Amino acid sequence: MTVRAYAVERPGGPVQRYEYEPEPLGPLEVDIAVTHCGVCQTDVGVVDDAYGISRFPVVAGHEAVGVVEALGSAVDGTRLAVGRRVGVGATAGACFACEWCLSGRQYLCPDKDDTVLRGDRGAFATGLRASDWRHVHPLPDTLASEHAAPLMCAGITVFSAITRYGVRPTDRVAVVGVGGLGHLALQFLAAWGCHVTAISSTAAKADDARRFGAHEFVVADDGLQRVSGSFDFILSTVSADLPWDTYLGALRPHGTLCVVGVPHGSLGIHPLSLLLGEKRLVGGLVGSPLETRQMLDFAARHGIRPAVETFPAARLDSALDHVRNGRARYRAVLEF
Amino acid sequence: MTVRAYAVERPGGPVQRYEYEPEPLGPLEVDIAVTHCGVCQTDVGVVDDAYGISRFPVVAGHEAVGVVEALGSAVDGTRLAVGRRVGVGATAGACFACEWCLSGRQYLCPDKDDTVLRGDRGAFATGLRASDWRHVHPLPDTLASEHAAPLMCAGITVFSAITRYGVRPTDRVAVVGVGGLGHLALQFLAAWGCHVTAISSTAAKADDARRFGAHEFVVADDGLQRVSGSFDFILSTVSADLPWDTYLGALRPHGTLCVVGVPHGSLGIHPLSLLLGEKRLVGGLVGSPLETRQMLDFAARHGIRPAVETFPAARLDSALDHVRNGRARYRAVLEF
Repeated sequence: MTVRAYAVERPGGPVQRYEYEPEPLGPLEVDIAVTHCGVCQTDVGVVDDAYGISRFPVVAGHEAVGVVEALGSAVDGTRLAVGRRVGVGATAGACFACEWCLSGRQYLCPDKDDTVLRGDRGAFATGLRASDWRHVHPLPDTLASEHAAPLMCAGITVFSAITRYGVRPTDRVAVVGVGGLGHLALQFLAAWGCHVTAISSTAAKADDARRFGAHEFVVADDGLQRVSGSFDFILSTVSADLPWDTYLGALRPHGTLCVVGVPHGSLGIHPLSLLLGEKRLVGGLVGSPLETRQMLDFAARHGIRPAVETFPAARLDSALDHVRNGRARYRAVLEF
Repeated sequence: MTVRAYAVERPGGPVQRYEYEPEPLGPLEVDIAVTHCGVCQTDVGVVDDAYGISRFPVVAGHEAVGVVEALGSAVDGTRLAVGRRVGVGATAGACFACEWCLSGRQYLCPDKDDTVLRGDRGAFATGLRASDWRHVHPLPDTLASEHAAPLMCAGITVFSAITRYGVRPTDRVAVVGVGGLGHLALQFLAAWGCHVTAISSTAAKADDARRFGAHEFVVADDGLQRVSGSFDFILSTVSADLPWDTYLGALRPHGTLCVVGVPHGSLGIHPLSLLLGEKRLVGGLVGSPLETRQMLDFAARHGIRPAVETFPAARLDSALDHVRNGRARYRAVLEF
C-alpha cells in the first residue's frame, strides 16, 4: 500500500508531499499505520541537515504511535497482532546477535535500524516499517496516543539514564532544563521517589516545574552556589554550554552528571572537579526494548504524561518551526 | 620521644632538619617508627606549594612503612600490636561515623586525616602518628618495606580505580603513561587477568612496559588511530593534557576513561564523545582501608613490586629533585 509521507527535498526546505511503495514485507518486519508522531529537536536537525548526515529527500519522524497493519512471517503472533496499538522510537530494529544485543544493550548494536537515519523512510508518514518486531512496543490502554508518542524517544532517553546509572529513590537529584526532555525527567524522577530540583535559566518556568514534580526550583546560574554539593545525580537536558565545573561542584561525592542534551562545543572539565569526590561524567542514549517496555509500564502506572501541543499532519512545517524556535510547551505531536 | 623530621621552611626551599615533640597519644592513635617513605609527585607539589595549600614549615611524605611503636588505649590489640610492620598512606584516619565512613568509603570522609595536608607532621620523619589505627595496615611478610612504601599511595590509587569501576578479567584495558603510577597499573591489570596495552609518548619505554605486564605497546599519539574502539577501560596516569576525544574514541561502547593523573588545565570533551556509545569519564582517588588490605594481599600473592630507587633520608633534597625532574625509574623511596 502506498505510503503518503511528508518530505523535505533540501536542507531547511519546505515540507512537501511525498509517496513511496514499500518493498515486500520481510519475515521479522512490521508495518504500522501511523496515527501520531512526536516532533523532536532531532527531527529539526535532520531536516536542516545540522548533523551533516541527512540523505535527501528526507522524511524525518522517530516518535511514532499507530496500529499494526501487517506482520512478517516470523513474528511471534502471541506477542504482537494486527490491529494492536503500538509505539516505535529512535530504534526500529537491531541484529539481536552481536555482543551488545546479546547482553540486552540493543541500542549499541552497530547494525541497529536507526529511525533517524533512514532517509525517506521516517515516521512523518501514514506508514512506518519496523525492521524487527521486538522494537515495536504495545502501548498500555491508559496511555493516550498523543501522550505515548513523545515517550518513545524523549521519555525513554531520560528514563534509561535514570535506570542505567543506578538512581535510587533515596537520592537527591536535579534536572537541568525544563523543556521537552526536562519536563518528562522531572515527572519520572518524582515518581521514582527522589527529591527533585529543577534548574532553569528561565525563572518563569518555576510553576510548571513544580507541577511536573520538582520539589525545588533553582534559577541558573546565580542559584547554583546555594546547591553546591547537593545532588547524587544531575541530568542535563539542555544544548547550551554550561559552567560544567560548577555543575560537577553541585554533586555530592560519587555523584553522576549525565548529559543527554548535546551542547555544540566541547565541555571544559577541570580534572580536579572529577577527582575530588570521585565524580562521574556520562552520556545517555536511548533505551533497549526491555527498558522501553518498563518505561511505558512505569509511565502508565504513575500517570506520567508529556505536555503536548498537537498539529495536523499537513501542518508539519508549522510544527517544525515551533520546535526550531524553542516555543514548544513542551512537546509537539503530529496527528494523521 | 622527639621526632626528627625533614622539613622545608618556604616553597621550594632546601630541606632542613626539624624536630618536634608529639602530644600525648590519643585512644585511637598509633605511633609508627618510620623505616621507609616513598617520594611522590604530590610531595614535590606540597614542598613547592604548587597547590597553594601547604602550611610551612612543611614535612611532606605520605607513603610510610615502619614498625608500630605505641598503640592508643582503645586500639584493638588482637588486630594490631607493638612491633608489627605496617604501612600508612595518604589517609591516616577518618571519623568512622559519617555516611561515607559507614558505607565503606572512608576516603570521602570530610574529616579524614589527610597525611598530605598535615603541615609539619608528614612521614619524611623518624616518627609518624596515625590518628586512627584502622588506617594502619599490617604488611604481608613477603613484601619488602621499600616495595611496600609506594604501594601505600601509588599502588592503592591505581588498584582502587580498577576495583571501583568494575574492571573484569575479560576486559581489554589500556594504561596511559608508564611512570610511577603507570608501571604499577600495568602489573595490577595483568595480574587481574586483563589484556593490557601500555600507551606512552616515549617509545623507549616499550621494553619496560612489556616487563611490567603489557601485552601491547602503543606510541601516543600516532598509534592511537589503530586502537580506536578497542578498550573497555583506560586509566590515564599522566599530568599532560591529552587529546581526550581521541582517548574516548579508543574506548568500546560503555567503556570508562578513568583519570588519576591531574593535568593542569581543563579537559576538553566533546559531548558526542560521551553520548555515542555511552562512555564514562571518571576520576579516581585513593582507597578505603578494606581496599588497601585487599591491594596488599593481591600484590603479595601476584608478586607485584614497584621498581624503586632508594635514597638515604639525609638525601631527601636529591630524591625530591629526581622526582621533580621526572627521572624516577619508577619510584623513589627514602630510607631511615
